[in-house]
Amino acid sequence: MTDHKACPVPTPDSVRAAYSLIIPYIHRTPVLRSETLDRIASTPQEESAFKGTAFEGQKPATPIFRLYFKCENFQKIGAFKARGAFHALLRLCSELGIDEVRKCGVTTHSSGNHAQALALAAFTLNIPAHIVMPSISTKSKIAGTRAYNARVIFSGSTEPERVAIVEEVIKETGAILVPPYDHPDIISGQGTAGLELQMQVEDLLKDSDTENNPKNDSVLNAVITPLGGGGLLAGTATYFSTKLSTYVFGAEPSFEGGDDGRRGLAYGSRIPTVSTLTIADGLRTPIGEINWTVISDQNKVRGIFAVTEQQIKDAMKLILESLKVFIEPSAAVPFAVILFDEEFRRIVMKEGGKVGWDVGVVLSGGNTTVEAVCRLYNES
Amino acid sequence: MTDHKACPVPTPDSVRAAYSLIIPYIHRTPVLRSETLDRIASTPQEESAFKGTAFEGQKPATPIFRLYFKCENFQKIGAFKARGAFHALLRLCSELGIDEVRKCGVTTHSSGNHAQALALAAFTLNIPAHIVMPSISTKSKIAGTRAYNARVIFSGSTEPERVAIVEEVIKETGAILVPPYDHPDIISGQGTAGLELQMQVEDLLKDSDTENNPKNDSVLNAVITPLGGGGLLAGTATYFSTKLSTYVFGAEPSFEGGDDGRRGLAYGSRIPTVSTLTIADGLRTPIGEINWTVISDQNKVRGIFAVTEQQIKDAMKLILESLKVFIEPSAAVPFAVILFDEEFRRIVMKEGGKVGWDVGVVLSGGNTTVEAVCRLYNES
Repeated sequence: MTDHKACPVPTPDSVRAAYSLIIPYIHRTPVLRSETLDRIASTPQEESAFKGTAFEGQKPATPIFRLYFKCENFQKIGAFKARGAFHALLRLCSELGIDEVRKCGVTTHSSGNHAQALALAAFTLNIPAHIVMPSISTKSKIAGTRAYNARVIFSGSTEPERVAIVEEVIKETGAILVPPYDHPDIISGQGTAGLELQMQVEDLLKDSDTENNPKNDSVLNAVITPLGGGGLLAGTATYFSTKLSTYVFGAEPSFEGGDDGRRGLAYGSRIPTVSTLTIADGLRTPIGEINWTVISDQNKVRGIFAVTEQQIKDAMKLILESLKVFIEPSAAVPFAVILFDEEFRRIVMKEGGKVGWDVGVVLSGGNTTVEAVCRLYNES
Repeated sequence: MTDHKACPVPTPDSVRAAYSLIIPYIHRTPVLRSETLDRIASTPQEESAFKGTAFEGQKPATPIFRLYFKCENFQKIGAFKARGAFHALLRLCSELGIDEVRKCGVTTHSSGNHAQALALAAFTLNIPAHIVMPSISTKSKIAGTRAYNARVIFSGSTEPERVAIVEEVIKETGAILVPPYDHPDIISGQGTAGLELQMQVEDLLKDSDTENNPKNDSVLNAVITPLGGGGLLAGTATYFSTKLSTYVFGAEPSFEGGDDGRRGLAYGSRIPTVSTLTIADGLRTPIGEINWTVISDQNKVRGIFAVTEQQIKDAMKLILESLKVFIEPSAAVPFAVILFDEEFRRIVMKEGGKVGWDVGVVLSGGNTTVEAVCRLYNES
């Protein structure tokens, strides 16, 4: 892929341009609301939840939330990753010509949603795809990737082992690398989830009466997305960076140092390696370099919050049972922040006051199985 | 409630009238599609699946399906029942005057979705509600009903015990009975799910290219709904009864005689009692009398098919994992018929031919819990 050192940093305009390119290829996923989840999120936490935290002995915050769940679990291949993959390929085709891209093919390494997303985009555009997957990948993910006619090449499961195989593939085939998150075209593509959410909330609030929206305007006060490699968060934050009344927040798992974003902000620089087995398996990666330049810019991302494994499970259970959508654990992390992060809840209480905040919550994907969900809850 | 012997049988016009009455109170639930589920449904069964059946040794059918899932799990209170409850109360108010209905209050007995639906409708219209629930009802259902300010009165779990308590409530308070399914206003209200589905599919097919819809018209060939008490099936069949190119089918569990609809058709009259502990717990009831007059009319319902517990579980797992929506087992029964009932699949193959059929599938509700889902799959 075009060397990203030569690429411009993504802008709101590049997100808009990405949207007009990919719109024929992706789903406009629905935005769902739930009075029950609004009520639960707007209920103060029990004081006992603060035991051993900085908030022990303090009065729980009383924020008021109106939540807008952007259901990217209904996106093609079951995750927002289809947006970035289609955008990156369409940009490649317009830069190099589609014949050249078809001649070279594309490659990546991924055990997860990016593998299927790139396979789908390449299949749709009739471009050969060579996907390097760890040989321990689950069968359904390998089958899902092969279903789009991609060539699957197995590797060991560590990063250096995967990279070595990708380099072999490139040497052998001339395939162009499409990275999963650390590229401006990927970031702009993922940012279209935020753009679409904003358009849909404008439509919803325009039609609603003042009882449901006491603010009586059409602006989200905040959007919160999961943070793994940082494509979705950086893209969303880029899109909203010129909308000064909408703050963007990131949400991470804290387990085994999975909160590399939060730690990086405290430390003052990107944390390049992460080794966590959090249940939020889409968020186990370190943040990409370009992603970090966006995410560490406080004018773009106002804050990053992290939650525990139990909090992710509690939030996921509420989304399954009340919102009735099937999501993977990574997608529940932002709602867990809304429910359980007292620092975040204080911001909303203080700035939203009696009117409260309209908050967009990106449900990033739904690629899990009934067995995996049951393992999650049987263990607890 | 008005004695239904004096009420007219529902008509397509009464379903349309119901829709204009309830539209401010209900959600227009989305219609979802899935290429993966279309492909799975359009794959012939394995011959081995026919062992011990009438189809043993025969060539599996090769039907082609394009499926439109009407997601009533996203309806208010998580099930289509909100449609009938709002309609019945609004009709009562227009017949008796809202002051009279508020003075009397309303009552019903239900352990399930109708209890919450009536409680919500009564709460919304500021009418007192007295809901008789078996004392063994799950806590979340009791809490869900009480959340709408309804008075919950406990009873034993058998039908006569519940009815006796309802009669006491009526004697004591003058409350008006709103039955869960056996009433024309309930049937017309539930039928609005079919009406809305038809409108939405017209919109979808109008916009689609001929590749996705080789028929190039805007008509569903069939709609299939779950069959318990028969409100949803009778209402849907009533609405489509004048649309001669759309057939309506019912889907039941076969476990422990839960297929009372199918058996009733074979026997030539309604089966008045059913005693099954099928996992499709919304479908354990016998069909209502008025419902039966509609459902046994072959010009309205073309056929009723029944599936096993394992088939329901297999269908439900596919809907959770591929469609990414959270449903209760009852809602999976129609898709189980599509996947596994060879007689139904032969009809679609024979009449749909190489073009196939566009089939609406009503996902009736999503009121279950993660624990209940896990119990279902851990046992297998």
